Amino acid sequence: MAVYTSVSDDQLADFLTEYALGEAIAFKGIAEGVENSNYYLETTTGRFILTLFEKRANPQDLPYFIALKQHLAANGFSCPLPVAGTDGEALRSLAGRPAVIVTFLQGLSPKVPNASQCRQMGEGLAQLHQAAADFALVRNNDLGPRAWPHLWAGREDTAEALQPGLADKIAADLEDISASADLSEDLPRGTIHADLFPDNAFFLGNTFTGAIDFYFACTDALVYDLAVCLNAWAFEPDGAFNFSKGANLIAGYQSIRPLSRYEANAFAILCRGAALRFFLTRLVDWTDTPDDALVKPKDPLDYAQRLRFHRTARSLSDYGG
Amino acid sequence: MAVYTSVSDDQLADFLTEYALGEAIAFKGIAEGVENSNYYLETTTGRFILTLFEKRANPQDLPYFIALKQHLAANGFSCPLPVAGTDGEALRSLAGRPAVIVTFLQGLSPKVPNASQCRQMGEGLAQLHQAAADFALVRNNDLGPRAWPHLWAGREDTAEALQPGLADKIAADLEDISASADLSEDLPRGTIHADLFPDNAFFLGNTFTGAIDFYFACTDALVYDLAVCLNAWAFEPDGAFNFSKGANLIAGYQSIRPLSRYEANAFAILCRGAALRFFLTRLVDWTDTPDDALVKPKDPLDYAQRLRFHRTARSLSDYGG
Repeated sequence: MAVYTSVSDDQLADFLTEYALGEAIAFKGIAEGVENSNYYLETTTGRFILTLFEKRANPQDLPYFIALKQHLAANGFSCPLPVAGTDGEALRSLAGRPAVIVTFLQGLSPKVPNASQCRQMGEGLAQLHQAAADFALVRNNDLGPRAWPHLWAGREDTAEALQPGLADKIAADLEDISASADLSEDLPRGTIHADLFPDNAFFLGNTFTGAIDFYFACTDALVYDLAVCLNAWAFEPDGAFNFSKGANLIAGYQSIRPLSRYEANAFAILCRGAALRFFLTRLVDWTDTPDDALVKPKDPLDYAQRLRFHRTARSLSDYGG
Repeated sequence: MAVYTSVSDDQLADFLTEYALGEAIAFKGIAEGVENSNYYLETTTGRFILTLFEKRANPQDLPYFIALKQHLAANGFSCPLPVAGTDGEALRSLAGRPAVIVTFLQGLSPKVPNASQCRQMGEGLAQLHQAAADFALVRNNDLGPRAWPHLWAGREDTAEALQPGLADKIAADLEDISASADLSEDLPRGTIHADLFPDNAFFLGNTFTGAIDFYFACTDALVYDLAVCLNAWAFEPDGAFNFSKGANLIAGYQSIRPLSRYEANAFAILCRGAALRFFLTRLVDWTDTPDDALVKPKDPLDYAQRLRFHRTARSLSDYGG
């Protein structure tokens, strides 16, 4: 949570002349998102979020993210809609950063999702996949299986220091996942969110109202997105797998988009892969984040614990499917 | 800018049952205020700010701040109005912290106020003093002249390290101010904001729409509040005094509440005192803030530079009055 780039009232007023949104009547930095700076922006015509993309965002990817949200919204999936300037361009520049204004989405992120919310999230994820089905742009998954050995290289000692014996287990995970790489190459592919954690999902009560933060979205196996969600939604804060939440998430998804036999067969290894992906990126952040950073790195061991569960799971039914 | 205490969706839903505000439909931590945690809260009935008071807030002072804002709002001064729960109490408890919900105030804080905004701020400050004129509660100024020698004690070396020769100058400031302490004791007293910096004032264009953050408010010489504003509003980011801004601020104030001869005579030494107060508290924060703190301390030297100007000023007219 942070605001990295400050925007003055004068800068904002100048920026808003590029839109037909009226004038600003409220403007507050919000502690949301880890990578970029976000502001709550209220104008005489409505409420919005202004995002400034910080240095970890690749400028070349931004048109993809913006087009995806426009496509999803146009196809009935609830997400922040990028607002175009009067010249038709949504991706603009402010305070030396790429910047976009998106519509404000109602809802609250659940801290610990309940089973009903997991069911709704499963449905929502399938709806996202369907709404994106005819999205034409392609973006490779930078954090897919091919990236994992590189993330791991040279971090064995860090892992071992966090938990003795962990380095060997992670190496074995990588080997097992690599052995089944062919398995996932042939699965139905499409546009995935790839980071749909509870803090990127909004609810009113138990009703899913939309998803935000599409900045890891990419083209990959659709069922991998469900495996990411399984990791993010069906484990308790103490690390224990909640079978009921897993079952609800998977059932919700399948009520909209039933998994094929191949997808079901690949699910367990993809869950392990998804856990490994978040373990590895957290491990990198753990090592690389300076002590005085505004954002504290998340604990990689949360995912080491999930990996322990995934190593014993064999099938979709072990996850409640 | 920070959110120190996180509030889950479930905690918030429970908390809102104590009010007649409906249910939450949006909730975002905002990067505003340095001392407390603030959230943007939208419910089915309106928009609010939820504040959780963190450890630097003295719980005994909170009823004073809440009563003051209620009094000001009832007397036509625009500020966030504390909202009472169904039992009539505005000061409540959430996530182990004292907490209050206040109404949402429109407007933006100027980064570098212009002369028109300074004029409006002067008027607004005088209106604040008038609206508070019959406020019955009293709170001593913890950071008034009597506190300054204690803040200074033992920090000579820190000041000297920041700027060689500074320690002697600060010691001389303290002595001069102490010599004129009698001067300010007899000035008209009342309730002052005591921290009305631009980031605590809201404007729509050049129109002042209200003030926030009354957590340094106290009972003291009214003209001291104008001296605080002079320091905060009439100096440029490079530290230079802007005579036109000073003149506008003072003229705006006097258009509503003319200064007495005694207040005018005391103004220069009070400006020096106000600069010293912010220099000293920043110096304390500079030394005491841990490196990994969410909030970076502000540079005390900004106020050392203002002090240099104040040492040469002799009268209200030197500030544009």
